[in-house]
Amino acid sequence: MAMRRLRWPWTEWTQGYSRATLSSDLVAAVIVTLMLIPQSLAYAALAGLPPEVGLYASIAPLLLYALLGSSRVLAVGPVAVVSLMTATAIGDLAQAGTAAYGTLAITLAFLSGALLLLMGLLRLGFLAYFLSHPVIAGFITASALLIAAGQLKVMLGVQAGGHNFFELSLSLLRHAADTHVRTAALGLGTLVFLFWARRGARPLLLRLGLGPRLADGLARAAPVAGIAAAAAITWAGQWQDQGVRIVGAVPQGLPPFTLPTWDLSIWRQLAVPALLISLVGFVESVSVGQTLAAKRRQRIAPDRELLALGASNLGAALSGGFPVTGGFARSVVNFDAGAQTPAAGVFTAVGIGLAALLLTPALYYVPQATLAATIVVAVLSLVDLHILRSTWAYSRADFFAVAATLLVTLGAGVEAGLVAGVGVSLTLYLYRTSRPHIAEVGLVPGTEHFRNRLRHAVRVSPELASLRVDESLYFANAKVLEDRVNALVASRPQLKHLVLQCSAINDIDASALDSLEAIDQRLRDAGLRLHLSEVKGPVMDRLQATGFLRHLSGQVFLTHFQAVAALAPEVLEAAA
Amino acid sequence: MAMRRLRWPWTEWTQGYSRATLSSDLVAAVIVTLMLIPQSLAYAALAGLPPEVGLYASIAPLLLYALLGSSRVLAVGPVAVVSLMTATAIGDLAQAGTAAYGTLAITLAFLSGALLLLMGLLRLGFLAYFLSHPVIAGFITASALLIAAGQLKVMLGVQAGGHNFFELSLSLLRHAADTHVRTAALGLGTLVFLFWARRGARPLLLRLGLGPRLADGLARAAPVAGIAAAAAITWAGQWQDQGVRIVGAVPQGLPPFTLPTWDLSIWRQLAVPALLISLVGFVESVSVGQTLAAKRRQRIAPDRELLALGASNLGAALSGGFPVTGGFARSVVNFDAGAQTPAAGVFTAVGIGLAALLLTPALYYVPQATLAATIVVAVLSLVDLHILRSTWAYSRADFFAVAATLLVTLGAGVEAGLVAGVGVSLTLYLYRTSRPHIAEVGLVPGTEHFRNRLRHAVRVSPELASLRVDESLYFANAKVLEDRVNALVASRPQLKHLVLQCSAINDIDASALDSLEAIDQRLRDAGLRLHLSEVKGPVMDRLQATGFLRHLSGQVFLTHFQAVAALAPEVLEAAA
Repeated sequence: MAMRRLRWPWTEWTQGYSRATLSSDLVAAVIVTLMLIPQSLAYAALAGLPPEVGLYASIAPLLLYALLGSSRVLAVGPVAVVSLMTATAIGDLAQAGTAAYGTLAITLAFLSGALLLLMGLLRLGFLAYFLSHPVIAGFITASALLIAAGQLKVMLGVQAGGHNFFELSLSLLRHAADTHVRTAALGLGTLVFLFWARRGARPLLLRLGLGPRLADGLARAAPVAGIAAAAAITWAGQWQDQGVRIVGAVPQGLPPFTLPTWDLSIWRQLAVPALLISLVGFVESVSVGQTLAAKRRQRIAPDRELLALGASNLGAALSGGFPVTGGFARSVVNFDAGAQTPAAGVFTAVGIGLAALLLTPALYYVPQATLAATIVVAVLSLVDLHILRSTWAYSRADFFAVAATLLVTLGAGVEAGLVAGVGVSLTLYLYRTSRPHIAEVGLVPGTEHFRNRLRHAVRVSPELASLRVDESLYFANAKVLEDRVNALVASRPQLKHLVLQCSAINDIDASALDSLEAIDQRLRDAGLRLHLSEVKGPVMDRLQATGFLRHLSGQVFLTHFQAVAALAPEVLEAAA
Repeated sequence: MAMRRLRWPWTEWTQGYSRATLSSDLVAAVIVTLMLIPQSLAYAALAGLPPEVGLYASIAPLLLYALLGSSRVLAVGPVAVVSLMTATAIGDLAQAGTAAYGTLAITLAFLSGALLLLMGLLRLGFLAYFLSHPVIAGFITASALLIAAGQLKVMLGVQAGGHNFFELSLSLLRHAADTHVRTAALGLGTLVFLFWARRGARPLLLRLGLGPRLADGLARAAPVAGIAAAAAITWAGQWQDQGVRIVGAVPQGLPPFTLPTWDLSIWRQLAVPALLISLVGFVESVSVGQTLAAKRRQRIAPDRELLALGASNLGAALSGGFPVTGGFARSVVNFDAGAQTPAAGVFTAVGIGLAALLLTPALYYVPQATLAATIVVAVLSLVDLHILRSTWAYSRADFFAVAATLLVTLGAGVEAGLVAGVGVSLTLYLYRTSRPHIAEVGLVPGTEHFRNRLRHAVRVSPELASLRVDESLYFANAKVLEDRVNALVASRPQLKHLVLQCSAINDIDASALDSLEAIDQRLRDAGLRLHLSEVKGPVMDRLQATGFLRHLSGQVFLTHFQAVAALAPEVLEAAA
C-alpha cells in the first residue's frame, strides 16, 4: 500500500509543521525521555547486557522509525518481552557480561531486522497473524510472570535459580530467608512507591495546587523521582559496600558503531529465535500502533511497519544495541503527552543521546533492585489471566491454545511456548474445519426459506434430501461430506434427489471436487441424482472450468427454493 | 457408528446366507486366489522379504478383515505402495534377507496395526483426511514410478542402483548394455503378454467359442498361465544355471506364529513410518471400499475400517507377515467376479493357505523377472500424470501440492514426499483462508439483494459501507479484516455506519472476536458505528454468551436489506 505510492512517509507530516505542533512534540519528547532512561537500563539488565546498551538501543531505532514508520506516535526501543526472549536466545551460547554475549545480542538484532525487512519486501506480514490473540495473550502473560519471578530475585538480593518458572518460584520460596535486607528495602520500597505513583501522584499534585497539565507531566516523571531517591539513599549510606548491587560506572558517550558476527553457524543457531522475536515484536508493535492511530482516525500500513521495524533493528545492530520493537507503555505516554508527529520520536532520540553523553555518571548509585522494581511494575500490567476465563466461556479451542501456550512457556521457556501455542491453535482450527456442520434442511412453511429439520418444523419430501454444508469444502472435510451422503442414501430407500445448498461454501478445492465427482458417481450408480443450489460466483467460475457441471447427474439451481419447486413440488403444495 | 450398535458385523450377512450366495462367493474366491498367489510373491520381493511371507500376509489379514470389516468385498493383503514403504522403512535398519529384516517387517506391521486400532478407538480417522487427494495422487504416482524403475532392474537382470528415482533411472540407462538376455526375454515377454491379456484374452476366448462367463474367468487367470509358461521355459532350458534368477525353494507349510521385537529404540525408529503406512493404507482402503459399496447402495463405516485394518495388521504381525491393507485390483476382481459377502474373503484365505501348504514346490522355477513384470503392470495403472494438468487448470494450490509430493517422493523418498505434500497443502490452505475475499457490497436496484460494487451496478451511500467477508473469521484472517476496515474508514471521511454482512461466516474464534471488539472501539473513537447483519444461528448463540453484542456501538439486523433500510433509507428511495 504505502510502497506503491513511492513517497517518503515523512512528507505526510513535514508539510504544514507548525510552531504549535513543535511545542506539542517537544513536551511529549521530554516526558518520554524521562520515562525511557530508567526503563532502558532495566531492560538491558533483563537481557543480560550492560546498562549503556539499553540507552544505545533507544537512539538509532527511534530515529529510523520516525523516518520510515507509518504510525505517528509509536515509540520504538527495548521492551520487556523481547528483552527476555533475547536473554533466552543467547544465554545458552555465551556468558552474560562477556564481549561475546554483546556481539550475539547485536547479531540477533541484525538477523531480526533482516527478517523483518525480508517479510516486508516479500509481503509476508500475514505470517504474524498465525500468532493468534489467545496465543499472544498466553505468551505475554507467561513471559511477564517469568520476568517478574526473575526480577524478584534481584529485588530481594537472593541467590535463587531454576530452569523454568516453577523451579524458580520454588527456589525463591526456599531462599526467602536469605533476603538481603537493605536490597529488599530499596526494591520493595521502590515497588510500593511506583504502584502508589500510578494512581496517587496526580491527585496529590493537584491538591498541592499545581495546574492539571503540570500535575500530569510531573506524575509521569514520578518514577524518575523514586529512582533518584533510591540512588540518593544508597549514596548517603554508601550501601554498595554493604552488599547492595548498584548500576556502577556507565561509559559516557554516543553509541559506538558495531557489526554482527558473520559466523554462519551462529546465524543458524539464532535463526529461529530471531524469527520468533520478529514475529512477536511485529504483532505487538502493530497492535499498539493500530489502537493509537484509530483514536485519531489515522491508520498504519502493516507492510511499511515491517520495513520500519526491520530498519530499526538493523540500526540497533549497527549502534551497539539489541532487538527492539514498538513498546506499549512508552507509545501510550507519547500519545497522551500530546505527540502529534514522528518529530517527537526524533526529539526523544536526541534526549536519550544527551543522557548517554552527559548523564551516565548520575546513574552510578542507582540500585539494581530499584531497576528490577520498575520492571516488575511494568510487566505485571501485562499479566492477563482473565483471558483463561473469557476463552473458556467463548471457545474451548481458544482456551486450550491459551492454556498450552501459558503452561509450556512457564514450564519450558519462551520459544517452546510460542511454538506449542501456534501448533495447538493451527491443529484445533484444522480439526474444527475438518468436521463441518452439515444440516439437512427443509422448507419453513409459508416462506422460501430452508432451515435445519432437526431444529425447526419444516416440510421435507421422502424423495428429495437437502444438505447445507456450513464450511468451505477442502481436503480435510471432503470425506466427511462423502460419509454423510453415503449414510443418508443408505438409510432412505425412497430417495431420488440430493440437493447441496452451497450458500456457505466459499471454496471447493481439487480434493473436494474429486469427492463431489465420487458422490455424483455413487448416487448415479444407486439411481439417484445430485443437484447444487446457491453456488457462489467465484466457486461457479472455477467449477465451469472443469467437466464436473457437464457430467453432473442433476442440475444447478440459482436458489434452493427453485430446486425444490422443480424436483419435489409436493413440498410447496403441502405448505401452501 | 458401528460401535454404538454393539453387534458383530457378520450378523449382517450370515442371516439368510443361501446356496446361491455360497456359489457366488466360492467362484470369486477361486479367481482371487489365482490372482493373489503370484501377486503375494511379487510384493514380498518388493518389500525385500522371502516369497512365502507374501502368502502368509494374505491369510490371517483376509480372515480378520472378513470378521471385522464393514466392506463386503474388500480384499486385504500386501499391496505395492505399502510394500515399497515397508522396504524403505526397514531397509536402513537391516539387510534384506536376514532374520532381523523379517522381524523388523513384523514389528512394522504390529505398530501399524496398533496405531490403526488406536485411531479407531479414539475416533481419529479424520487424521487420514489430511492426506488430500492431490497429495495421495502425487504420492501413488511417484511410488509407482519408483517401483517400476526398481523392477525394471530385475526384469533386465542388470546391476543398477541409486538413492532416488532420478539416480536409479540414469543408472539403468548407463547399465542397459549389461542386460542379461535370457532374463530380459522372460521379463519383457511376460510384460507384453500381461498387457495383451488385459484386453485381448477375453475376446480371443470368446472367438474360440467359450461362454462369456467362462471366458471372463479364464481371462482373469491368464496372468497365472503366463507365469506358468515362463516357469516352464526356465525349467526346460534349466536357465537358472545360466544366470536367470528364480524364486527357488519356498518352504511348505502354514504361517508360523511370530512376535515383534519389544526393543523400544526400534519402535521409536519405526513409529513415523508405521504412522505413514497406516494413514496411506487406510486412505487407499477406504476409498476402494466406498467406491465398491456405493455400487450396491451399501456403505462402509470408516471407524470400523480402522479397527478391521488394525486387526488385520496385528494378524499379519503374529503370522509371519508384513504390513497390509485393502488392495484396489484384488477388491475390484473380487467384486466383478460376483463376491456377495465377506465369506468370499474367508474362502480366499483358505485357498492361499492350501497354496502355502501344497503348492510352493511348483513355484520353484518361476523367474524373478516374471514376478517383476507382474508388478510393473500392476503399478503402471496407478500412474496418474493427468492430475498435474487437471489441478493446474482447477486450482494452483492443489497443483503445487501434487508437484511437491511427486518431486520430493521421486527425489527424496516416500516418507519425505508424504510429509512435504501434507505440509505444502496445509500451508496453502491456511494461506488461502488467511486472505479471505472481502467484498464491499451495494444494493442491486429493484431487488433486496446485495452484490460486490466492483462487479455490479449497485447503489451505495456515502455514509454507510457494507462489507461481506467470504470466510469464517479466525486468528489468521482477523487482522486482514481490521486492515480493510481501517483503510475504508481512513478513505471515507463522510462514513457514519459500517455493516458487516455475515452470511458466509461460519465461525468466529476468540481472536476474531477480539478483532471485532477492536474494530468496534476504533470506529466508536472515530465517530462511527458498527452493525452486523445475517449472523448465523450458531455464531449468534456464541456471541450472545459474551458482552460483545451488549457493547456493540450499532445493531444486529436479521437481513442486510433491513440494515440498509434502517440506516441509509435514501439508498432504497433512489433505487425505487
